[in-house]
Amino acid sequence: MNQNTSSDTMNALVSLTKRRGFVYPSSEIYGGLANAYEYGPLGVELKRNIMNLWWKRFIQQRADMVGLDSSIILHPKTWEASGHVGGFSDPLIDCKQCHHRKRADHLIEEHFAAKGEEKQVEGLANEELDQIIKDAKIPCPYCGAFDWTNVRQFNLLFETSIGIVPESESKAYLRGETAQGIFVTFKNILDSTRVKLPFGVGQTGKSFRNEITLGNFVFRTMEFEQAEIEYFFDPEQTDWVPLFADWQDKMWQFVTGDLGIATDHLRWREHPDEERSFYSKRTVDLEYQYPFGYKELWGLAYRTDYDLKQHMEYSGQDLRVVDSSTGRKFVPHVIEPAVGINRLFLMVLLEAYTQDEANQRIVLKLPKQIAPYRAAVFPLLKNKPELVAKAKEIFEQLSQDFPVAWDDRGNIGKRYLSQDEIGTPTCITVDFQTLEDGTVTLRDRDSMQQTRVAVEDIAAQL
Amino acid sequence: MNQNTSSDTMNALVSLTKRRGFVYPSSEIYGGLANAYEYGPLGVELKRNIMNLWWKRFIQQRADMVGLDSSIILHPKTWEASGHVGGFSDPLIDCKQCHHRKRADHLIEEHFAAKGEEKQVEGLANEELDQIIKDAKIPCPYCGAFDWTNVRQFNLLFETSIGIVPESESKAYLRGETAQGIFVTFKNILDSTRVKLPFGVGQTGKSFRNEITLGNFVFRTMEFEQAEIEYFFDPEQTDWVPLFADWQDKMWQFVTGDLGIATDHLRWREHPDEERSFYSKRTVDLEYQYPFGYKELWGLAYRTDYDLKQHMEYSGQDLRVVDSSTGRKFVPHVIEPAVGINRLFLMVLLEAYTQDEANQRIVLKLPKQIAPYRAAVFPLLKNKPELVAKAKEIFEQLSQDFPVAWDDRGNIGKRYLSQDEIGTPTCITVDFQTLEDGTVTLRDRDSMQQTRVAVEDIAAQL
Repeated sequence: MNQNTSSDTMNALVSLTKRRGFVYPSSEIYGGLANAYEYGPLGVELKRNIMNLWWKRFIQQRADMVGLDSSIILHPKTWEASGHVGGFSDPLIDCKQCHHRKRADHLIEEHFAAKGEEKQVEGLANEELDQIIKDAKIPCPYCGAFDWTNVRQFNLLFETSIGIVPESESKAYLRGETAQGIFVTFKNILDSTRVKLPFGVGQTGKSFRNEITLGNFVFRTMEFEQAEIEYFFDPEQTDWVPLFADWQDKMWQFVTGDLGIATDHLRWREHPDEERSFYSKRTVDLEYQYPFGYKELWGLAYRTDYDLKQHMEYSGQDLRVVDSSTGRKFVPHVIEPAVGINRLFLMVLLEAYTQDEANQRIVLKLPKQIAPYRAAVFPLLKNKPELVAKAKEIFEQLSQDFPVAWDDRGNIGKRYLSQDEIGTPTCITVDFQTLEDGTVTLRDRDSMQQTRVAVEDIAAQL
Repeated sequence: MNQNTSSDTMNALVSLTKRRGFVYPSSEIYGGLANAYEYGPLGVELKRNIMNLWWKRFIQQRADMVGLDSSIILHPKTWEASGHVGGFSDPLIDCKQCHHRKRADHLIEEHFAAKGEEKQVEGLANEELDQIIKDAKIPCPYCGAFDWTNVRQFNLLFETSIGIVPESESKAYLRGETAQGIFVTFKNILDSTRVKLPFGVGQTGKSFRNEITLGNFVFRTMEFEQAEIEYFFDPEQTDWVPLFADWQDKMWQFVTGDLGIATDHLRWREHPDEERSFYSKRTVDLEYQYPFGYKELWGLAYRTDYDLKQHMEYSGQDLRVVDSSTGRKFVPHVIEPAVGINRLFLMVLLEAYTQDEANQRIVLKLPKQIAPYRAAVFPLLKNKPELVAKAKEIFEQLSQDFPVAWDDRGNIGKRYLSQDEIGTPTCITVDFQTLEDGTVTLRDRDSMQQTRVAVEDIAAQL
């Protein structure tokens, strides 16, 4: 599965995901909508499985974590306090000749990437970006001219208005991240649960960024699914260094263990001082080797007490915690592991995509626990009612516990290939022998091995 | 549990849900945000359980259903085609004295409800609403004056803009319902899956309505979670009458069977001709008896081929299906079962809320399969390391499979009361006998019966 560095693989994958109902370009009948996608019948199952697995590992199975589901539209002051209204922006640049607009950082990165070089520009000031563009004489990718405006910052928050009465409308924002909902409800959570520091609050949900750059399929979209955690602790009681390392371990385990990603497709990237926010003591990104380069998958940041302090200042509320043994009041510090579910989704598909030329097939070698269907059930022949009835019975029974596909079209070989392409781990065929001895053929996706198993043992085998 | 008709129950429930971490008023530290709520650690688990159960029953366990996850921001033409831009509005009225604005239909309903009468005004024209207000001389609830403007319609869609560049911005809307995403991707689904009519597409997700009326806690909120299905069929092959009745059965089974709602708290309300959209042949609401009256829980509408035809007209695309045996092309008809998850959530809590005066306790008698915690684990004494260690071991093991609470504070009696109040079906206590014979005390929430069970049999008992 080292094919994932090729852009051919990306094209093949985009085509497969559309053809088989994982991901569709948004609003296609209306001519499409840039940077937006719809998750079809198989995609929604894969995405749900990834999200549910995240929830299980990071919320349910941990005694020190609780979940939350906060609003997409929060009080607008939230985004002033968080700095998003003031500073959540992209550096944009205009071509004076053709009037196309580009993200300046992407313009530079793409220019150097085309020459096989990797240029890190995150955290650079507008003037520094201007200088690089000037020095490298980077032309407009649309018209070829070299006639740029200066770089300017544009805010990424989507705006809307609450109140349907024009004179009483108030400006509001669609959340740019789920994390701020955790800080805004921090006091509610403290007051209503028995959590004791250190503890974390996690949530999954949609966030929105007004992107203008085309986003490499579902990697960067206007609307995206996040899974964020704020892990609160008392800096006088808990040393942040091992805690940070422990979160790195947990992220690594999830990606390599649960999602089955090869370790040589992953790397840690340490944010240098100039890229890190002034309040962050350390930030690392777990990066995956996408076909378009190593890109952030999962960020881990030690944000100190910055966010809670900002909300204290903007709200006038006391968000401090009391140390019950000493009476000391303090603002907890946080470590934030934040991942984009859509990026996990794309990574998992890229990693699973396998051209098995020896067997003339495409296989999605998805981990069993996240594959859209856990199994597929086939009657050997669709015109034999007794085979169909028995297969239906098995289908009904298995689908009580997990998603199961049904296929009675074409021959068995074609059905195998069709299920391989969508990652179904096991195919179950009901044939004449089934009616005699109560066994079925189980066929394994990866090894292509077939074994006979008694009907009552199927569930255990899956 | 006939207590749910009382507004005292509603107040007690709102207080309990805040105090125990089910639901918080939104953005409290910033003075709040009307008609918005946050789901805390217990609320998010309860809501997830309801949504997952819906998904299991209506998507996973049915061979004729597939899932979808479409965008919140779709191409704006979607909402012109659907009629939302033109007609998705509320009738509002202003008091000329105090300048408060009210929904005219709610003004009338509340006025008559206060006199113990039920007045149905859905589907009435603005002039008819004006006439009722005039005839009944309904005063302004804020200032008492009787000096109203005429009723006017205001659109409920939230607006936003795509594109961060002012001159290239295009107006977009936050979806007012999830259903339109199904129609817009109908062709993608047909082309990419093996669905054959009749089949349904279902999805869950957030929708948005710019409400000005205070919404009875989470019953009516600006942002809310829907679960909608469009069930497509060929009207020449499938008789809609029994199909409609079958969907009524399925909704009824889910609400009474899975969610445990008493049948005498439910009723079907048939929409009369004047209330029904012109294209709908039949619409019924499954209503629940909330403390503020019988209200729509789950709507079921036979929408004919209206929506697909509208999208055909606005997109110029052919969304017809071909009958493979005759070659006939036709636009499928749909039956739409649409439910608000937040309304199920509120119903389930109201139904479960029980003042058990004989035992001086509040109990949430939630069905086991949706309770936030399936069980709670206690060490009898927190200062006995061997009890704590054994209890932790049981906690760790059980939480592999479902959410489990931990409590080591106060005495056992108080811990029981605390778990009763949040609906935990079973409490598991590790005591000295556990260390001797490997059994624990299982205490049942509803019967308060205690039994001794071997540690290895606990999971089966839950």
